[in-house]
Amino acid sequence: MTAQPKFIVVEGLEGAGKSTAIAHIKSWLAARGITPVCTREPGGTPLAEKLRDLVKQVRDNEQVAAETELLLMYAARMQLITNVIKPALAAGHWVLADRHDMSSRAYQGGGRGLSDDMINPLRAMVLGNLQPDLTLYLDIDPALGLQRARMRGELDRIEQEQLAFFQRTRDKYRQIASREANIAVIDANLPLAQVQQQISAALDQALA
Amino acid sequence: MTAQPKFIVVEGLEGAGKSTAIAHIKSWLAARGITPVCTREPGGTPLAEKLRDLVKQVRDNEQVAAETELLLMYAARMQLITNVIKPALAAGHWVLADRHDMSSRAYQGGGRGLSDDMINPLRAMVLGNLQPDLTLYLDIDPALGLQRARMRGELDRIEQEQLAFFQRTRDKYRQIASREANIAVIDANLPLAQVQQQISAALDQALA
Repeated sequence: MTAQPKFIVVEGLEGAGKSTAIAHIKSWLAARGITPVCTREPGGTPLAEKLRDLVKQVRDNEQVAAETELLLMYAARMQLITNVIKPALAAGHWVLADRHDMSSRAYQGGGRGLSDDMINPLRAMVLGNLQPDLTLYLDIDPALGLQRARMRGELDRIEQEQLAFFQRTRDKYRQIASREANIAVIDANLPLAQVQQQISAALDQALA
Repeated sequence: MTAQPKFIVVEGLEGAGKSTAIAHIKSWLAARGITPVCTREPGGTPLAEKLRDLVKQVRDNEQVAAETELLLMYAARMQLITNVIKPALAAGHWVLADRHDMSSRAYQGGGRGLSDDMINPLRAMVLGNLQPDLTLYLDIDPALGLQRARMRGELDRIEQEQLAFFQRTRDKYRQIASREANIAVIDANLPLAQVQQQISAALDQALA
């Protein structure tokens, strides 16, 4: 392994299997003597977790504007990057993230239809020169993902969107993955063993 | 009076006398048969009020990044504009605002030192073509304003900043007021009767 700590991100729709993938990545890292700092977005600091609650809360009495949702996601991300991700990397720790910037581009960009012209200045402000070394994008049929998410229980405000929203989100995920570097597309429709095999192969190739 | 409803904003440092000014403006409007929709920022919708609490809360365990503060202010503003200010104006109501966009430019731009390059894309996203018809900027010596604010009781996270922060904020307020249209500078260091006289004169000139 290289001495330089790495920033690994797991992305995908609801029900794509991110939690299981993260457990698998932790085992892969543990076998190499690495215990990563784990984050989730939105969230991961006291203030960012409050923002997570606010943005996910089902609201009977107030429509949340798409731009408000976008701004809250980047506000939470700013706190997490400043107070957790950058200090961890600077201290030599690997960081393993459950969602990061690609989620905002996919959900608020693809799903909500906000333009790159609107999102890119926020990315410049909040990310600076921070880039994941590897993003594992778990690609899943939205209908299957939603079915799995529903089996887990109550859906939050964003999870309650219609199938078409998640199809647009997936399209954007796939578009980004096809155009940008350091993103491994994992076919998350397959049985678990095969998903984990793909994840291990991606880690081996990118990091070993 | 014109039939077109107007958007009036009151701005200024802590302790400048905004609440008293707003009461005076309401009387001026009432004498002309107008009952405005009153707003405050950050706040004014259920979600925006939660954001107000979060951004003002004194935090012992977490530094709030200047960019986070900026993003939360614009998130709250987006909700207020979308759900309150624009519908009110569209329905023919006047709107009287306790703080609006100029506060972010002065506090987060001047006070915190964030650049116009960072703030302007947020303004474009959130304000669109919304512009106040009249902004009454209550200009006060920061030392005097802080003294008054302290007499009111506990200071919030932003109010706890040092005097130099409020001097930079005031400088930015004055710079904007000197360069842009539809902003009346009120000398809020003067006794109340003279402040109210200036406010009435500004309203007469701009709106009557």
